[in-house]
Amino acid sequence: MQSESKLRGIFTPNLVPYDSRGEINEPELRRYIDWLIEKGVHGLYPNGSTGEFTRFTPEERKRIVAIIADQTRGRVPILAGAAEANVRETIKACEYYHDLGIRAVAIVAPFYYKLSPASVYAYFKEIGDNTPIDVTLYNIPMFASPIDVPTIQRLSEECEKIVAIKDSSGDLPNMIRMIQAVRPNRPEFSFLTGWDAALMPLMLIGADGGTNASSGVVPELTRKLYDLTTSGQLDEARRVQYDLLTLFDTMIYSAEFPEGFRAAVELRGFNMGQGRQPITAEQKTDIVTLSRTLQCMLSEHGFTDEPIGGCATGISGEDLSTSDVSQIVQHVVAELNRRNLL
Amino acid sequence: MQSESKLRGIFTPNLVPYDSRGEINEPELRRYIDWLIEKGVHGLYPNGSTGEFTRFTPEERKRIVAIIADQTRGRVPILAGAAEANVRETIKACEYYHDLGIRAVAIVAPFYYKLSPASVYAYFKEIGDNTPIDVTLYNIPMFASPIDVPTIQRLSEECEKIVAIKDSSGDLPNMIRMIQAVRPNRPEFSFLTGWDAALMPLMLIGADGGTNASSGVVPELTRKLYDLTTSGQLDEARRVQYDLLTLFDTMIYSAEFPEGFRAAVELRGFNMGQGRQPITAEQKTDIVTLSRTLQCMLSEHGFTDEPIGGCATGISGEDLSTSDVSQIVQHVVAELNRRNLL
Amino acid sequence: MQSESKLRGIFTPNLVPYDSRGEINEPELRRYIDWLIEKGVHGLYPNGSTGEFTRFTPEERKRIVAIIADQTRGRVPILAGAAEANVRETIKACEYYHDLGIRAVAIVAPFYYKLSPASVYAYFKEIGDNTPIDVTLYNIPMFASPIDVPTIQRLSEECEKIVAIKDSSGDLPNMIRMIQAVRPNRPEFSFLTGWDAALMPLMLIGADGGTNASSGVVPELTRKLYDLTTSGQLDEARRVQYDLLTLFDTMIYSAEFPEGFRAAVELRGFNMGQGRQPITAEQKTDIVTLSRTLQCMLSEHGFTDEPIGGCATGISGEDLSTSDVSQIVQHVVAELNRRNLL
Amino acid sequence: MQSESKLRGIFTPNLVPYDSRGEINEPELRRYIDWLIEKGVHGLYPNGSTGEFTRFTPEERKRIVAIIADQTRGRVPILAGAAEANVRETIKACEYYHDLGIRAVAIVAPFYYKLSPASVYAYFKEIGDNTPIDVTLYNIPMFASPIDVPTIQRLSEECEKIVAIKDSSGDLPNMIRMIQAVRPNRPEFSFLTGWDAALMPLMLIGADGGTNASSGVVPELTRKLYDLTTSGQLDEARRVQYDLLTLFDTMIYSAEFPEGFRAAVELRGFNMGQGRQPITAEQKTDIVTLSRTLQCMLSEHGFTDEPIGGCATGISGEDLSTSDVSQIVQHVVAELNRRNLL
Repeated sequence: MQSESKLRGIFTPNLVPYDSRGEINEPELRRYIDWLIEKGVHGLYPNGSTGEFTRFTPEERKRIVAIIADQTRGRVPILAGAAEANVRETIKACEYYHDLGIRAVAIVAPFYYKLSPASVYAYFKEIGDNTPIDVTLYNIPMFASPIDVPTIQRLSEECEKIVAIKDSSGDLPNMIRMIQAVRPNRPEFSFLTGWDAALMPLMLIGADGGTNASSGVVPELTRKLYDLTTSGQLDEARRVQYDLLTLFDTMIYSAEFPEGFRAAVELRGFNMGQGRQPITAEQKTDIVTLSRTLQCMLSEHGFTDEPIGGCATGISGEDLSTSDVSQIVQHVVAELNRRNLL
Repeated sequence: MQSESKLRGIFTPNLVPYDSRGEINEPELRRYIDWLIEKGVHGLYPNGSTGEFTRFTPEERKRIVAIIADQTRGRVPILAGAAEANVRETIKACEYYHDLGIRAVAIVAPFYYKLSPASVYAYFKEIGDNTPIDVTLYNIPMFASPIDVPTIQRLSEECEKIVAIKDSSGDLPNMIRMIQAVRPNRPEFSFLTGWDAALMPLMLIGADGGTNASSGVVPELTRKLYDLTTSGQLDEARRVQYDLLTLFDTMIYSAEFPEGFRAAVELRGFNMGQGRQPITAEQKTDIVTLSRTLQCMLSEHGFTDEPIGGCATGISGEDLSTSDVSQIVQHVVAELNRRNLL
Repeated sequence: MQSESKLRGIFTPNLVPYDSRGEINEPELRRYIDWLIEKGVHGLYPNGSTGEFTRFTPEERKRIVAIIADQTRGRVPILAGAAEANVRETIKACEYYHDLGIRAVAIVAPFYYKLSPASVYAYFKEIGDNTPIDVTLYNIPMFASPIDVPTIQRLSEECEKIVAIKDSSGDLPNMIRMIQAVRPNRPEFSFLTGWDAALMPLMLIGADGGTNASSGVVPELTRKLYDLTTSGQLDEARRVQYDLLTLFDTMIYSAEFPEGFRAAVELRGFNMGQGRQPITAEQKTDIVTLSRTLQCMLSEHGFTDEPIGGCATGISGEDLSTSDVSQIVQHVVAELNRRNLL
Repeated sequence: MQSESKLRGIFTPNLVPYDSRGEINEPELRRYIDWLIEKGVHGLYPNGSTGEFTRFTPEERKRIVAIIADQTRGRVPILAGAAEANVRETIKACEYYHDLGIRAVAIVAPFYYKLSPASVYAYFKEIGDNTPIDVTLYNIPMFASPIDVPTIQRLSEECEKIVAIKDSSGDLPNMIRMIQAVRPNRPEFSFLTGWDAALMPLMLIGADGGTNASSGVVPELTRKLYDLTTSGQLDEARRVQYDLLTLFDTMIYSAEFPEGFRAAVELRGFNMGQGRQPITAEQKTDIVTLSRTLQCMLSEHGFTDEPIGGCATGISGEDLSTSDVSQIVQHVVAELNRRNLL
């Protein structure tokens, strides 16, 4: 029997700040975690895609969760990314996180190789049968082998320890299909979306919450969208969803993921350091420009001051204005759409 | 200035019945159109993808619209598909439909060749500058060159005759982006979705209605979903959306499009004849099986009787039951998802 | 029994020149056809993708073939594109081209809708059983429903009138698979490639020739590549293949297809007129630049004079030089590759 | 100045045998390495995709190379996969392999996240500037961020330590583009293909050799294909390429990669153990069937005996025969082609 409550609300897939040597900046990470909790996120989600889990060593991944668990001290539940090199290493990680008192783990389907549904099932079945801690399936088909609806249904029927799915596909009809396939037999099974661009409609269609990267940047806004949607204030929710989409698009399409989010968290007052993925001088310049655009966006919500020199409301004289960057973003999105990549 | 009212509601992309020689079955088409109007659809949309426009000659396409216009006699507005071999032929078709008194045309972006946004813009710009009739852009990236957001925005600003977009991508964030880009300057511009699987959430996010193939099969249900959603009865709307998705998935993924819809309309009492795309004996057998499944689905809503022998509620003895077909559909959907094709 | 000889060699998918009103420029088309035959192409292929068959009306498509048949007067065999709106119209076109004395038709798989292998089989089976003229299957998966190896094998076994496949995928292992599946039973069945970028290696692996757009621009070069390859002069063939790839890449990726080829044929002395697909002022400027680059490439082979002002050998002062355009092309190709679109 | 000779020939991306506890089976690995060298492969390539590098811990990856280096004792050069979690860890691995006396490393572009060309450049630039050992770029766009031609060209110009590219895309025109972009300035730069299905034509177009998974199964055959191609015996080479394609298709498409290769190496007399990716009971049965098919294929070349019961030459009575499996494989390949996934 499932003793713990259903996963619900906004779980923040937190970034990890680096120090000047490229190591985990523990004090800043602790400060960031406190801030997120104070701003109202319902839970934390270290070692997600936003948390760059693939760029850390196995030891570092464990340390990140240990720090956050220590800092959180039960104030909010933690969902820890636990995917390791193979099923045995992953189960060992589950055991470690269980011992830390984590609420649940999230495990992405195997990546690099593109596995068939049968292999994805076999992988999670072995984990589900051997984990001491509740497991969230993590479906992110743009990066990893997809977890399809029949597989989710079968795992939900066979493995009591599998209690949720986090879906980052943004595919709304598929969310309905998942809910239809699982909820009748497992009413406490949780459906979380990782696609901020459609959080409101996904919740209206039945999702229980989200693991949304934007909540690491504007936790107030993501939380507000969640509250407005669950309380049925749809006109206001729609306005917030529109704003959140613009911000999300800017962060996700203007720089290599998750650099746009890193730049934005810097603007909220945290020293995030330089990412582990090397970037060119030109990319650095682009991030400075992006940062200014983000500052203008955040200042509109009162989250920051305007940048020195102010924010262009229309076409500015010299600087690349917000509207320019918005247009660039729109072009990139359009191009990706044209190629059916979104 | 735009004199006519905004396009809004459910426009049915009607199928065309064939007679025994493979020609347009005019009497049955007239009877089908009357039935759709009686069942409450807000408008008609001949020569869409559901209407197999590419499988007719230019003369036949005109005749289909002429028949429907004659039969409708103004009871509901008609949106006529007007895409022809090149821009000159398309403009001629616009003129013809204008003379017929049609409300507006819908024009798919050029297909076969995959055009760049610049070329898509140039194509619609020439049409927008020369059409006597209001134009709906038709974006269906899985079949034709995509029409991206900057192109839609530019065309909406430059061409008063372009009054709407019909988007069949089902991409919810992109619908928000389109609305954000166009509505401030063109509040009467209409946003219609062709993706039945997400009609409710797309309307909640701001769309004005849909051109939904399912409304040619179960006009009562699609209309009900529209009414429940616009009146804010979300719990009930969600249930209808779930049901509609199941029916839509079954019709769209169990047979070559639009054969599943054709089989379902047969069950509503129309003689649709055999499609123009040849099918194998095995495919014919599959459609018989599908038809039985659809009959069970439709009978649950009271739209038909149960098939002879009844509908299996679980696993039936001999026949391929509804649940079997559902599972097959689910597997196909899953497989397409796995390959990122949905 | 197959009375006619195997299709073999280079069949030119000819462009169609337009006059100032956008109509078929018959005198120029006749002059262009004579020139191609004089330059040594083994056959002609009107109404292919290069010939923009989708942008003509059914009547125009017939007229193009009639003109070419009349002008050719048996000097080289003609392979006429015969795809029409549906299977019945296509068979009628086959009959018409048969009456014209055409050698064979080429029929692309149905497009717009993406058909399953079963439907593609059913379509060609009905044609194969009813055509009076030899049929070439035309596989171009980037634009139309793919024709897979089992389908090709089955059709080759069941339909004597189906005598060849033209494959424009450029997928080399798949060419081997097709040959392995068909040649043992149908040794006279012909395998033609439409992918100029790999003509030499495809022939070395077993193909019989090609329908190559570049042969409409530089028939001397494509023919030379064919001759060098068939006679085993591989070092020289490789050099020509490298040159042809550079030219082909430039024509295909620098402008909307087939505008780059149109610009190049202009340089060979033909008045091609303006294409039917509208283009923007910016696109027109790009084609002027491209034309200059192409002139430099063609002048290196002695096919044209250098443009006024000469050709930059390295980095030029003011003009966009060949190397600049090459770099742009390379970037586009790279980007398409990155997105797995090539 | 580059002191060592150009990488050339067939480098075997070896599998790793497991013992009954799922650990590296060191004695069997040593025996397998000896066998490969005796059979004539030109080099070894541990920690490639075939070698399942992502399923090992960082320590295990090092140990695998150490064992192979110790066993090889300089008889053939070793190309060691050195990709780790981030650029710093990767450079540390380069140093370690350099100390082991390895000839060169191969480094796949970052995976999971899909990086832009700028980021891929920045990643390899940092490695190229800091590695003590020669580096082979490893391009496998179906699994990892692609390395495009301009990036390869720039890295080849700026980093002397980057000496080769291993390309597993199988994209023949792109191989020509790479060679055109790099060879003039870096004549000793090596171009290796990882796509066995087109080894012969890729070599004829200019490649220097391959890292081919089939050479771990039938080293005699892959080596023979290399020798026949380089010596210009094209008719015989073509026959071997055809046979190799059939075998390769069967191994790669009949089971989850690299299980088909593992099953085939078992047939050559090695105890490969069970893979680390869990599989279902049904998948295990499929592999038994596949193994029988492979045994028939290998026995035709004299590499194994026929399986008990013999090999069906046509349609067998009860067993799934070779031709059945071939047909299944062909269908899978066809389906993947249809969806443009090959």
